[in-house]
Amino acid sequence: MTTWVDGAAGSRWDVTNLPYGVFSMAGDEPRVGCRIGDVVVDLAPLAASDLLDAAHVFQQPTLNPFMALGRPAWDSVRAWLVEMLTDDAARSEVEPFLVPLSDVTLHAPFEVADYVDFYCSLDHASNVGTMLRPDSEPLLPNWRHLPVGYHGRAGTVVPTGTEVVRPSGQRKPRTETTPTYGPSRRLDIEAELGFVVGAPSAMGTSVGTDSFADHVFGVVLLNDWSARDIQAWEYVPLGPFLGKSFATSISAWVTPLAALDAARVPLPDQDPRPLDYLRVDEDAGLDIDVEVVWNGTVVSRPPYRSMYWAPAQMLAHLTVNGASLRTGDLFASGTISGAAREQRGSFLELSWGGQELVALDDGSTRTFLEDGDEVVLTATAPAPAGGRIALGEVRGRIAPARG
Amino acid sequence: MTTWVDGAAGSRWDVTNLPYGVFSMAGDEPRVGCRIGDVVVDLAPLAASDLLDAAHVFQQPTLNPFMALGRPAWDSVRAWLVEMLTDDAARSEVEPFLVPLSDVTLHAPFEVADYVDFYCSLDHASNVGTMLRPDSEPLLPNWRHLPVGYHGRAGTVVPTGTEVVRPSGQRKPRTETTPTYGPSRRLDIEAELGFVVGAPSAMGTSVGTDSFADHVFGVVLLNDWSARDIQAWEYVPLGPFLGKSFATSISAWVTPLAALDAARVPLPDQDPRPLDYLRVDEDAGLDIDVEVVWNGTVVSRPPYRSMYWAPAQMLAHLTVNGASLRTGDLFASGTISGAAREQRGSFLELSWGGQELVALDDGSTRTFLEDGDEVVLTATAPAPAGGRIALGEVRGRIAPARG
Repeated sequence: MTTWVDGAAGSRWDVTNLPYGVFSMAGDEPRVGCRIGDVVVDLAPLAASDLLDAAHVFQQPTLNPFMALGRPAWDSVRAWLVEMLTDDAARSEVEPFLVPLSDVTLHAPFEVADYVDFYCSLDHASNVGTMLRPDSEPLLPNWRHLPVGYHGRAGTVVPTGTEVVRPSGQRKPRTETTPTYGPSRRLDIEAELGFVVGAPSAMGTSVGTDSFADHVFGVVLLNDWSARDIQAWEYVPLGPFLGKSFATSISAWVTPLAALDAARVPLPDQDPRPLDYLRVDEDAGLDIDVEVVWNGTVVSRPPYRSMYWAPAQMLAHLTVNGASLRTGDLFASGTISGAAREQRGSFLELSWGGQELVALDDGSTRTFLEDGDEVVLTATAPAPAGGRIALGEVRGRIAPARG
Repeated sequence: MTTWVDGAAGSRWDVTNLPYGVFSMAGDEPRVGCRIGDVVVDLAPLAASDLLDAAHVFQQPTLNPFMALGRPAWDSVRAWLVEMLTDDAARSEVEPFLVPLSDVTLHAPFEVADYVDFYCSLDHASNVGTMLRPDSEPLLPNWRHLPVGYHGRAGTVVPTGTEVVRPSGQRKPRTETTPTYGPSRRLDIEAELGFVVGAPSAMGTSVGTDSFADHVFGVVLLNDWSARDIQAWEYVPLGPFLGKSFATSISAWVTPLAALDAARVPLPDQDPRPLDYLRVDEDAGLDIDVEVVWNGTVVSRPPYRSMYWAPAQMLAHLTVNGASLRTGDLFASGTISGAAREQRGSFLELSWGGQELVALDDGSTRTFLEDGDEVVLTATAPAPAGGRIALGEVRGRIAPARG
């Protein structure tokens, strides 16, 4: 099956990818689109002209109505799109609804209901534990028994390209006796994947690991901006709050779970064996390569396949107490860090707590983010027939603190 | 100014109260109402017949559109209502729109955007600290410098009367070496006030303590159900998650901030003096008396006036990093506990970690919640001309664990 869309076949945005997003053109209303190659398929009019049942969910400013339809609709829309984009006979019908990517504005792809952030990388948790608690075991006793997570702020999840204002707040370095107020001096990133819930679940019920693909619509790249000095002072005993809540950036494109079938890999060994509700099949992991680009320099290549806890385990844990799911719920993996230095997904780890300089290609060095710095996360995954597909990038620049 | 509504004058639902909620009658659509005495004012048709500008926001299934209008609209609607309900000449116009409370179903009053829970009671934090860390200072170093808080799950905030299914999850008592899965054995409540944001704020800006009343629409009673065994095992280092996320109950009535003017009192002494962004005027506290009723027995009377951190300080802290506010954001005080045993707002504290029995009037005893138990929180505040007004109650019964 080869697409007739110019330049798409064999590219990272081939017909095996087909991520969804929300776009507009000058002066018109945001609506749902699908990317192939360097064009966006304007789904609402195409679906209407082709009399698709789901046509009404595309003339909407978010993916939520489409995501709420559930997996049978996701599968049938994808199958329809693949057919329309590979069948030469459909070309004349579809072409009027293709828009060059360069002509569109991309928007937040969905409205976030609840946002949960996990902590699923063994290397990240070990690195942070070693830095924060140098005299203890790096991992806390619960870490290998459950995917540790917490709720973040849904209202400050923003799409790629949104400027991030340096947050102010209380910081108390260890060398001082009382806290002071001011702009964060240790502004950081966390390179993560985010998983978006489409199909809801009822309160009082749980979603087993084998129901993951019935509830999760797709994947975004996610940057969990973090003010380490604010976080370090505030986080005991109730967890991160203002050190995280100022901004979380996500990609404009949501990669459907079906596009990641070829990326499925076994998890690393889990020892001890998880409790029954956390058991997963083979291939519960994802082989996705992430790149962290700081002012144009690739400073890290975190490998998602090294993550200890699987996405299906996060979802099963999140709902094991009967917490309901809503369309638009977003849960993120936590920082993706591999074992090697050049695989660390945060600047806290790359600079080892600010002690080691990170060299950029322009000759400058960094520990944490400076005003004007730009960070871009990109990622690719194996495509079914060889080659790779791309996830949507997530880009953000730091603006100076206000006030 | 005396109301003409039968039985309302001098009651706890006098015209000085006038809480808002969402109600329906058999078969019709949920819409906004206002309680006075034992009747509900059906605001949409009354406002339409009186040609009120804001009439369109009342024919809605949540308070959010009304709350989004901001303080000038809240003030003018309240002034209009007081006039209509006290002017004998308006009686014939208003009476057709009064519905007996016994004829209505009450619904969730608003759609929750983000939910944040604070930890503002010195006595509660000291009690919990003493139990959890018997060999250390009860209060952690940051506690007197900032109102400690964290994000909770907005999607499981439910209105009074919603059944609460006992959550299951991982628990590891100190006497065991590995965790097990099962229903919570230490199911608890937390008696709190919740503050509801009406007027939003922009990302990258903060809301000072003096802007509190421009953003906060009103107050609900809130029960932050807590599974202590799940919480104790999961909460390091990222805070409470599944021990809280299964359910949070709120009252169906939202008390407007203006109804609590007579309840304003000075805060307890704050030592050390808070940083500038947390400074408040005199009378930043609230004199609200709460009662905790367990299967019909009043087991505690937590006094809100004893809270260390003021509501305006919570809001200023929540936004000091530039986090935006949305209409429907809910932030709660944390457990309200006074210094005396009979003022403790959680069963963890009342039973001192499960070691002391709580006696109920039916002769039974309790430490934590049993299946079938019902908890009701009620509260009153001083009325402007003496007497007291009531907040809406929050009621919940425990259903057995599922699965």
